[in-house]
This record gives sequence, C-alpha cells and structure tokens, in this order.
Amino acid sequence: MASKVLQSNYDVDYVISYRIPEDDKEAAIAQFKKLVRALAETGLTTEVRRGDETSLLLFVKISDERIFAQVVYRSRIKDWLYGVRQIQPRGDPAEALGAEPLTDAERHRHVHHMICFSREEGGAGITPNHGEWKNVEAVFPLQDHVKNKKWLTEFSSKTFLNPEDLDDIRDTVGEKIGYYYAFLQTYFSFLIFPAAFGFSCWVLLGNFSAVYAVVNGLWCVVFVEYWKRQEQELAIRWGVKNVSAIEAKRREFEPERVATDPVTGEKVAYFPAKKRILRQLLQIPLALLCVVALGTVICTCYAIEIFISEVYNGPLKSILVFTPTIILTLAVPAISNYLTQFAEKLTFYENYETQEAHDRAMISKVFVINFITSYTAIFLTSFVYVPFASLLVPYLDVLSLTVKPFAENEKQMQTPSPAAFSINPNRLRNQMIYFAVTAQVVNFAMETVVPVLTQKGTKKYKEMQSSRAEKSGGTAPSVSANDPPEEKEFLTRVREEAALPEYDVTSDLREMCIQFGYLALFSVIWPLTPVSYFFNNWLELRGDTFKLTVECRRPNPVRADSIGPWLDSLEFLAWLGSITTAALVYMFSGGNGPDGKPHTIKLWALLLSVFFSEHIFLVVRVLVRSAISKLDSAAMRKERSERFMVRRKFLEEAGLADAIKPLTASPNSPLQDESGSQAFASITKETLEDDARRDSLSSSDPADRFWRRQRTWTETEKVGLTLIELMDVGGAKSKKQQ
Amino acid sequence: MASKVLQSNYDVDYVISYRIPEDDKEAAIAQFKKLVRALAETGLTTEVRRGDETSLLLFVKISDERIFAQVVYRSRIKDWLYGVRQIQPRGDPAEALGAEPLTDAERHRHVHHMICFSREEGGAGITPNHGEWKNVEAVFPLQDHVKNKKWLTEFSSKTFLNPEDLDDIRDTVGEKIGYYYAFLQTYFSFLIFPAAFGFSCWVLLGNFSAVYAVVNGLWCVVFVEYWKRQEQELAIRWGVKNVSAIEAKRREFEPERVATDPVTGEKVAYFPAKKRILRQLLQIPLALLCVVALGTVICTCYAIEIFISEVYNGPLKSILVFTPTIILTLAVPAISNYLTQFAEKLTFYENYETQEAHDRAMISKVFVINFITSYTAIFLTSFVYVPFASLLVPYLDVLSLTVKPFAENEKQMQTPSPAAFSINPNRLRNQMIYFAVTAQVVNFAMETVVPVLTQKGTKKYKEMQSSRAEKSGGTAPSVSANDPPEEKEFLTRVREEAALPEYDVTSDLREMCIQFGYLALFSVIWPLTPVSYFFNNWLELRGDTFKLTVECRRPNPVRADSIGPWLDSLEFLAWLGSITTAALVYMFSGGNGPDGKPHTIKLWALLLSVFFSEHIFLVVRVLVRSAISKLDSAAMRKERSERFMVRRKFLEEAGLADAIKPLTASPNSPLQDESGSQAFASITKETLEDDARRDSLSSSDPADRFWRRQRTWTETEKVGLTLIELMDVGGAKSKKQQ
Repeated sequence: MASKVLQSNYDVDYVISYRIPEDDKEAAIAQFKKLVRALAETGLTTEVRRGDETSLLLFVKISDERIFAQVVYRSRIKDWLYGVRQIQPRGDPAEALGAEPLTDAERHRHVHHMICFSREEGGAGITPNHGEWKNVEAVFPLQDHVKNKKWLTEFSSKTFLNPEDLDDIRDTVGEKIGYYYAFLQTYFSFLIFPAAFGFSCWVLLGNFSAVYAVVNGLWCVVFVEYWKRQEQELAIRWGVKNVSAIEAKRREFEPERVATDPVTGEKVAYFPAKKRILRQLLQIPLALLCVVALGTVICTCYAIEIFISEVYNGPLKSILVFTPTIILTLAVPAISNYLTQFAEKLTFYENYETQEAHDRAMISKVFVINFITSYTAIFLTSFVYVPFASLLVPYLDVLSLTVKPFAENEKQMQTPSPAAFSINPNRLRNQMIYFAVTAQVVNFAMETVVPVLTQKGTKKYKEMQSSRAEKSGGTAPSVSANDPPEEKEFLTRVREEAALPEYDVTSDLREMCIQFGYLALFSVIWPLTPVSYFFNNWLELRGDTFKLTVECRRPNPVRADSIGPWLDSLEFLAWLGSITTAALVYMFSGGNGPDGKPHTIKLWALLLSVFFSEHIFLVVRVLVRSAISKLDSAAMRKERSERFMVRRKFLEEAGLADAIKPLTASPNSPLQDESGSQAFASITKETLEDDARRDSLSSSDPADRFWRRQRTWTETEKVGLTLIELMDVGGAKSKKQQ
Repeated sequence: MASKVLQSNYDVDYVISYRIPEDDKEAAIAQFKKLVRALAETGLTTEVRRGDETSLLLFVKISDERIFAQVVYRSRIKDWLYGVRQIQPRGDPAEALGAEPLTDAERHRHVHHMICFSREEGGAGITPNHGEWKNVEAVFPLQDHVKNKKWLTEFSSKTFLNPEDLDDIRDTVGEKIGYYYAFLQTYFSFLIFPAAFGFSCWVLLGNFSAVYAVVNGLWCVVFVEYWKRQEQELAIRWGVKNVSAIEAKRREFEPERVATDPVTGEKVAYFPAKKRILRQLLQIPLALLCVVALGTVICTCYAIEIFISEVYNGPLKSILVFTPTIILTLAVPAISNYLTQFAEKLTFYENYETQEAHDRAMISKVFVINFITSYTAIFLTSFVYVPFASLLVPYLDVLSLTVKPFAENEKQMQTPSPAAFSINPNRLRNQMIYFAVTAQVVNFAMETVVPVLTQKGTKKYKEMQSSRAEKSGGTAPSVSANDPPEEKEFLTRVREEAALPEYDVTSDLREMCIQFGYLALFSVIWPLTPVSYFFNNWLELRGDTFKLTVECRRPNPVRADSIGPWLDSLEFLAWLGSITTAALVYMFSGGNGPDGKPHTIKLWALLLSVFFSEHIFLVVRVLVRSAISKLDSAAMRKERSERFMVRRKFLEEAGLADAIKPLTASPNSPLQDESGSQAFASITKETLEDDARRDSLSSSDPADRFWRRQRTWTETEKVGLTLIELMDVGGAKSKKQQ
C-alpha cells in the first residue's frame, strides 16, 4: 500500500502552500480568495487541504487538456520565433501536443508558468513571497518517489552516468539542473587523467614538480574549452539552443518610466542603462568591503595561529593553537553571509529587467566573496608567510596579548630574531591537504548528513510537542485530524515535502568551481589533490542526488543552455592558475622551498617565470580554442542539416528551389531565337559597319543603339569570333602565312 | 558632349574582359562560345566589342527585369531565412522589387552573382582566372563618373564624412568598402583626442611621459571597443546583420569525398576537420620562416647601419650610412612578397570551404608578416640597442668588412670599448619620427601618385608604339579602328577601365591597422605621433577615394558585417601596447633614457611595471567592454522593436496573441458554474467528512475521488476558509474569546 501511495501523486500537477500570518488574518483570507479565483481563471482546477498549523495546501491540476495544449503550443511558437526550435509548429495545438509529447519537466515548467507568469504573458501572476502574494510560501511540484528510488540505487551502483541518465535527469527536473549534472559528470571523468598523472608525479617527482604544473595547466585549458563545446552539444541534444534569448521578465523590475515604443506602439518599461551602470559602480566599494572585512579577519586569525603555533611555547599550546581556527569557522560564514545579503540588496538596487541578468550579476558578486573566503589563507601561506615570515614574525609580539593569560613568563611569548626563526616547511602542504581532503569531507557532511539529522530532529520535536499539547488537553487538534483516511498517507507526505527547503543548484555549481580553483591554483603543492577530488566528486554527485530527491522540495524546472557565469569563473581561475603555479614552482621546486628569508628569492626570476607561464598559457588557450572550435561533431552536423532542410523547404514553398528557373520562367528567352541567327551567314568587318549605320538611323537613344547591334547571343558569338580573327595573335599569324 | 558620354554607361550592368592567349587560340574561341551561351542561359543580354590588342570586351545587361526580380527575390528570401532581414518578403517578386528598390551596389552584386555563382546557385558559373575560365581576365561594373567627381570634390572640401556620405559609399560600392570608410572615419575622429593630448604632453611633459602612456592605452581600449559597437550599429543600419552567416562556397574548395547527408539526402562535399588542422599546423614553420628570413635581413642591415653610423668614421660615411637602408627598402618588400605568395599557397592547401574562412586564414598570415616587417626595427632599437648597445657594439667589428674598401686605416673601423662607447640617445625618437611622418608620406606617394604616373607613362608608351607601328606600315590597325564613331569615346573609356587594377580594400585596412599598431606600441616615444597620423588620415581617406574611383576598376560589391579579422589584430596590438609602453616608460622616463649599459636597468622593476600595466589594461578592458555593451542605442532599440513586431505578428496569425485566451477558449470554463456553488450553503467540519464518504463510494480511482471533493473553485474557496477558521492563529483566538 505504502509503495502504491508513494507512486500515485493523485494527478497533482503543482502544490501551492499558503501561509496564514498571525497578524492580519482577514487580509490573508481575502488574498486567498483572489488566489483561488486567479488560478481558476488561468484554467487550473484546485483542491484545498490543511497544511501545517497555520498554512493551507492548494493542489493544482490542469482543468482542461485543451487549454494546456494551447499554452504549450504558444510557447512552442515562441521558441520557434526565437530560434530555439528549427521547425515551425503547425496544425492545431492538440495534435501538435500529441506529435511531441511533453516530459515531466516540460509539463511542470508550463504549469509553473501558468501559475507565476504575469497576466500579459498568460499566467495567473502569482509571485511567491513577493508583493501582494507574500503569503504564498511555496509553489512546487511533487517528488516522483519511484524515479528518485531508481536514481539513488542506480547511480550508487555505477561509476559514470551515461548520456541517457543525464537525459532522464533533464526530463525530470529540467535543463538547468541537467546542466549541473552534465558538468559534474564531465569534470569527474576529466579528473581521471590529472588524478593518475598527479599520483605518478607524487611518487616519482614529489611536490612542486614543474612537469606536473605544466600538465595541470594544460589540462585546465583543455577541460574548460572542452566543456564549452560540450555545453553547445547538450544544448542541441536537449533542444535549448539560444534559449537564453527568451528572457523571462523580472517581476521585481522597477522601470523609471513607461515609454511607448515608436515602432511597435507597445508600452515599454524603460530604465536608463547609464543609470544602471552608475549603480553598478557600487560593486567596487562592495568588493573592497569584502576584501577588508574578510581579509582582516582571516589575516589576524592567521597571524595569531602562526604566533601560537610557532612562537608561543607555554602551556595549553596544543589547545590554544585551535582557537584561531575556531574563530575563523565561526566568523567567516557569518561575515560572508552578511556580505551576501548586502550583495543581494545591491543587485536588487541595480534593478535588472530580466531574471537572467539579475542572477548573472548576483553570481559574480558571490564569486568574489567566495574567492576571498576560500583562497586568502593559502595565498597568505604561499606568498606572505613562506617568503617573508622571518621578517614579519618579530612584529607578531603584539599578539602576545592573546596568550598572556596562559603564559607563565615572557620568554614563552618572545618572538625570535629573524635570523633565529625558521619557517615550518610543511605548513603549506598540510594546508593544501586540509583543503583537498578534510574540507571536502566536512563539506559533504554539512551538505547531506546534517540536514537529514536536523529534519529528523525537528520532526521528533514537533511530535513530542503535539503529544504534550494533547496530554495537557490543548485545544489545537493535529493538522491531519480531518484528512480523509485514504488521503492521510499522501497528505502527510505532501506536508513533509512542503516543509523541505528549495534545492539551489547554484550553490552546488559554486562548490565545484571553487574546487576547480584549488586544482588550478594550488594543486602543484600536493599532486595528490586531483586524486582526492576524483573520489570526492563521485560521492558528491550521489550526495547531490540524495539532496535533490530526499532533502529538498522538487525544484521548478528551468531551461538553460549553459552553466552560465560560472563558466567565466572557471576560465578566470584557470588563467590565474597559470600565474600562481609558476610562482609556486619557482619558489619551492628544488629542495624543500625557501627558508622564509626573501633574499633567497630573486624577484626578477619570479616575475620572469610568471610572465612566460602566463603568456604561454594564453597562447595555448587560443590554439586549443580554435582547434576545438574547428572540430565538427555529429550533433552539430545534424543540427546544420536540419537548418538546411528548413530553409530548403521554405525556398521550395516559395517555388525558388531550382536554380536555373529564371531562364524557363522568362517568356522571350534569348535562347529561343537560335533560328534568327541564320540571317547572319557571314559577318565581316564591312557588314559590321553596315548594320552599325543601319541601326544608328532607327533609334535616337545611344544606349538603345548600343544594345541593338547584336540582337541575339548567337550574333554576339559570331561578332566575337570575327573580332578574334582581326586580332594578331599566334593563330591569326599562322593563317596569314597561308 | 564629353560629359554626356561620361554620364551614360549605355545601361551596361557588367563588363567581362576576355583574353585571347597567344598559344591556343582555338580553345579560347570554343570557350568564348561557351561563355556567351552560359550568360545567355542565365538571363543576360550580351554585346561584344574589341578590347585591347588581344582581348574582347563582353558587355552584359539583364535581359529581362522579371528574371532579375526573381533572382533578387530569391536572395531576399535567403536573407530572411538566415536572419539577415527581419521581415519575410511576400507577394510576387516583381512588386517586392518595386517595394524595396535596389541600390547600385545591390544590383551589381546580384548581376555579379548571376555571372559568377555556380549553376546550382543559379549563376552562369564563370570563375575569372580560374579553371576552364582562366581566359576570363576580369568581371567588373563600370565606374559611375558623375558620382566619382561628386565624391572627390565633396570629400576634399569637408573634414568629416557624415553618415549619409558613408551610406552613399555603401550604396555605390557595397558594404565591405563601406565598412572600411566607416572605420577610417571613426579612427580619424577618435584621433582628435590623442592628437590634442599628445601635443600638450609633448609641450609640457616631453617624451616618454607616463601620463601620456596611461591615457594612450586607455584610448586604445575605448577606441577598439567603441568600434566593435559601431560595427554592430552599422550592420543594423545597413541591414547586413548576420550576413556572414550566409557563407559563399569557395569554388576552389576540393572535398576529400562527397558524402550524402543522412538527414537531408543532399550530396555534401566533405573535408575532415582533423586533416585541415594538421595542415594548419604548417603555419608554425611558416611563421618561424618569416621570423628568420625577415629577422636576419633586418637585423644585419640594422647592425651594419649602427656600425657605420656610430663606429666607422672614415670617408664617405655620410653616403655609406644610407646603404643598409637602401638594401632594406629593396630586400624587405621582395622577401615579404615571396613570403606572402608562400602564405597564399599554404592557405589554398588548407582548403577552406567558404571564401570567408579562406580570407580569414590568409589575413592572419599577412598580419604576421606585416607585423615583423613593420615593427622589428623599432623593437631592436628600444629593447636591444638601447639597453645592450655597449655590450654588443664591440662584436660588430666583423662588419668592418663592409666598409673595408672605403676605410683608410684600421682605426676608422675600430669598435670602441664598452666603457668608451655611448649610445645615440636620439636614435629611437628619430626612428619613431620616421615611421610617424616620413614613412606615411612615402607610403601615400607610392599608393596614389606613383600609379597615376605609371599609367600615364604606359599610355604614352603604347601610343608611341602604335604610331611607330603605323609608320613602319605595321599590319595591326588600332584596336579602336572599327568602333562605331558614336561609341568611340565610351569604348576608349571602358578599355582604360579594363586595363586598371582591382581595388583591394584589405591592403588599405592593413595599412590602418599597422598604423594603429605604431600608435599603441610606440607613440609614447614621441607624443606628436597621433598629430601626424591625424593629418595623414585626412589625406589617406581622400587618397583612397581617388584610388577607388580613378586608379582602379570599380570593385564588385561585397556584403560584410564587420572589418573582419583586422578587429582581432587591433585588439592584439592594443594589448601588446600595454606591455611595450610600460617597458619604454620605465626604461626612458626621467632623464634621456639609459646609456646602453644594461646594469642601469633593474629587470625586476621592468618586469613588475610590465606585469602591472598589462593586468590593469586587461581589467580596464573588461570594464569598458561591459559598460559599452550595456549602453543601448536608438538603432538597437529599433531593431529589437522590429523583431518584436515580427514575433507578435506571427503570434497573432497563430491566433495566440491575447494572453488570457485559454479561459475564453475552454468550453467548460470553471468560472461558469458560479451558480452551482449555491448548493453548498455552509460547509462545516462534519459536512466535509460527509461528502468525503459520499464521494468515496462513487468512484474507485483514488485520484478521481481526490479531485472530486471540491467540484468548483468556489467550493475550494469555501473549504479553504473553513480550514482557516479551524486554524489557531491570532484571528481565531480572538473569536474564541467571545
């Protein structure tokens, strides 16, 4: 029975969870009425049930498949107009729908549009958590538990997902998430090479090997460029090419004024680009703020840690050493959260017209923040601590305050003289190992394990609460009190799903980009990094699937033809890698690296190696790019041929397919008066002048006379030959000699 | 009378000059017959006249405007299919042509296609100077002398061309040349700023001022990015957007095999991309060859010159100094010519399918060659001579051989000791002045004055020859012997035009790019450079117009939506400029530069300044690019609106324009059974369960039962409200207290 209920979703297309706020119930009721009506008007059937204590669940279903067919048809026409699909959809909507049945994702996408698009775009205009609809807490489809089970079992049993799996994912949760999986998959399989190579380097050459650096850099370029191509192929395979051209309007966009378009006569919401650019300039102070805020925290913690671990030698050292790390793990997320909110505000203020532009702007900011939080520490170690430690450490005694309470005497906190001090050569490697292994594991735990526990916990807590309430004869009956018995199971499931968070694919993408960053920038420190990432990512994909299917609401399918701005981040990181890697190799290769005394590093040599490595990188990138762009693929050939077919079809319809048409089309074709040419038996120099004279009388217009001299192409031919005769070229001479 | 004849071109659309080769006349005659027939079959009327001694002039005219209308119509449909034009051409060809009359350029383009396109594409398949048509020497339209006069007078009287002038150029000679003029115009007007700024820098700060360097770099970025945008706007204005998508097949393309496309069933000429890439790898040895061949020549001449000018102090020095320069001016063009031919061969070998790809590949090679020939010398001065002269000069005594014959004693040729030697501080500046002024003047003379003289000369010579021939009772009568008297003047004119060379716009574009290069790379040496270029380019534009209209045949109009690969060259040069300029400024600013002794230059400082300048440049470029890309223009808005119109039109035709359609469309609209709601007077907790039970009997399918509970949206509403009542939120409580 359970499985049966799991299987059936009662044909529910979508669920809307509507929250009744404590404060003004009346308004909520009025709004609820509007909601139901709006949905009905858009062609959706509704059923309402009790949600949790203070919310309703509104189940939504297409009321009439014919209406839905219309919706789909319209969107397909739109796709065609925007060049997303080659073939123009014809015939009547219903049969068009029959011809190309919808995937779950597509059906969900259309229903979601019907609920959330503005009236002008043919939707009910519901904007969850925004404006008048702030009570609409969530709009989501129901999980397909059968498929989920299938995925979880299948994926965990195989190493690589095959294209069909990716298609399946895309068919179920839409292209955007499909692209994430495809990317993760490609990245994972690409990692095999550096993993293998890195391992052998680690065995044979040890850390900081130039060979590894070069190969790794090359690999980064090839991977990024290859993925770009992969994206295009997927776009063709999934029929979402150019889909980004269809820009979904942002409902939050606030136009400066509504102008009437001179051409179309449409009302256009207008916001001056210059004004926006000015607002975007605020990103610079924001970036600076990030650098300062996070930078200072990280640097101080870093300094304290150095001081305690390498200067302080009093009691409790073993414990004190961890304090800065703890401070970091507490402070950094808090700060970056705050900054992210700040960035969000700014992005809203920048006021983009399309959702895509908005996300793009937001992501770029997020990237900056993450870049700082992720890489600052290791940057400090490799480019500050290692070269300059012996100079800087003496100035750390200000930090002695931090350990004063514990120290027994001054000596324990005395900073050594530059000469005496020697850096900890393993520090950098250990740090890298931390980022490559420990951090990944922790991250995975935070991402997948913790949520499950918390969910379980809260569930337990609620149950206890309600039971206690009942004991104490509380008035509130359980929410499931008047569920129809047969629906009980189903409704509890839906209530649980409604309580789950949204699945945010961007955060997963971000994670992967940051990881790629470590690989590109610092993996030369410890060549086993790719190995660890290889295994981690196998787990990552399964973990994300678990998250997607169990720990989150089913996402609203979104179309996409790329992983978006993250691609730029990848390119940037690969580029930066060519710089850092060169620097690291120069400083550390040969022996166990510098001794923390700058004089051992020749700045010119460092810069020179960086200069060369960077520019070689850029040249190689150009070459790889052009090479890949020239390679042709089956998918692309197919697409081209389809294009061609469409065009030919049109030309045929326009009756212009056959090339030599003009001739047959023309009534007085020059070829028809072959016969007429008989009149001109032999044309000589004299006769030429004769008909010249003759014609000159007939017409006054010189142009006319010019074109009348040779009436048909045969005449032209003859005259031509005579003229050739007159020429004194080899042939002619020989004739004369006769 | 003269002017009258000048004006009328006797309605001639095109002229084909057909050469009768000395060797096999018979074949030529046969081929001539084929030619005339082919033209006739394509729907072209022909008139033949005598050309020069051994050639014919075949005058071509559209035989039937209706045929032509068809040709135009077909090409317009094609444009529409490729997204070049928004609106689909409708109605019958003739009226379509009436609705949008053709410009001269367009008419010529179509006629040219009719002559030169393959049969499949609806042309006569004539390929001048190639294959069976190698006797077809030229296919060209006739100059419009009235317009030419107008241009020459107008342009020389005004400083800036206005958009109308550019449109006029485009309407007469096609978009490709139109783009060149637009570019030259934009470049010219942009030069005002650096010219003014450079002048003031020269006055106030002297040479090698960092300020100038920064501003100049910034200017380069802005100019290149602005031009990119300008290109797009012109493409919209001239209706050639995406025109590069319509790829004209190369007739010379040799497919490896002809495969049948699985989708279209078409025969497709196929050449494997991998194979081509392999062939393209030959570009690397070619590039090396260029470097070596040109490099050595230039370097040796350079060394010799140094030796003579700064070591040798014997007799004839003043003369000998010029010998290397003379050698250069003779050798370099020869070598680069040879290399260019080589490059051409290679490009043919690379065997591209489309003309565009072919040109692109060729241009990139040409750019490499020109880069070396143009910049090597000055690179040597700034980065070899200036820093290392004192070390290198002693080794120059091998060159003493070159002057041995002239020297009276060894002393005159003795190289000084590094200590004794001091470099010529003005050398670099003088060299720059040469490139900025002298070279430009010389170039202009070579380009415009010399051809005129040579033409005049040859004409004279021919006349003398013929007259001598007549004196000596030669057999050959003058070619114009049997021209009809009234045509004499016209025909002589055509003969002259036929004798003229083709106008090659790429060479002019190349010239401008190289000039831009000097500006970006080295103008910091002598801030007056932009001033000189500013004036030069005013002249340049007029000179090119003279060349285009008087010294060349009228070109075959070609469509384009960009200046093509040169844009990349510009970007590259600007980038490189950020490096060289920084280096120059570091080395020379402050005092009169280094003394030729390297120790005075700190390599690390040099590299550091380069590193920063380059990366700041790149960041700035990103910013400028995004800023410009965000700026909206009237043209683009207009285009967008047109797109929108087209789309809306389609949706309307598909009867899907109005958004709320679904509702009205649906027969059993949920709104219609408002009335039915009366049945449910008051719904209480109990009744809810009642009809739950009742329904549960009626149907077996749980889903059915689920959706039957609330028959209409009004019921949903009511049930919702009851459920809200049941909730224990603020409102509810207050009720209870009553």
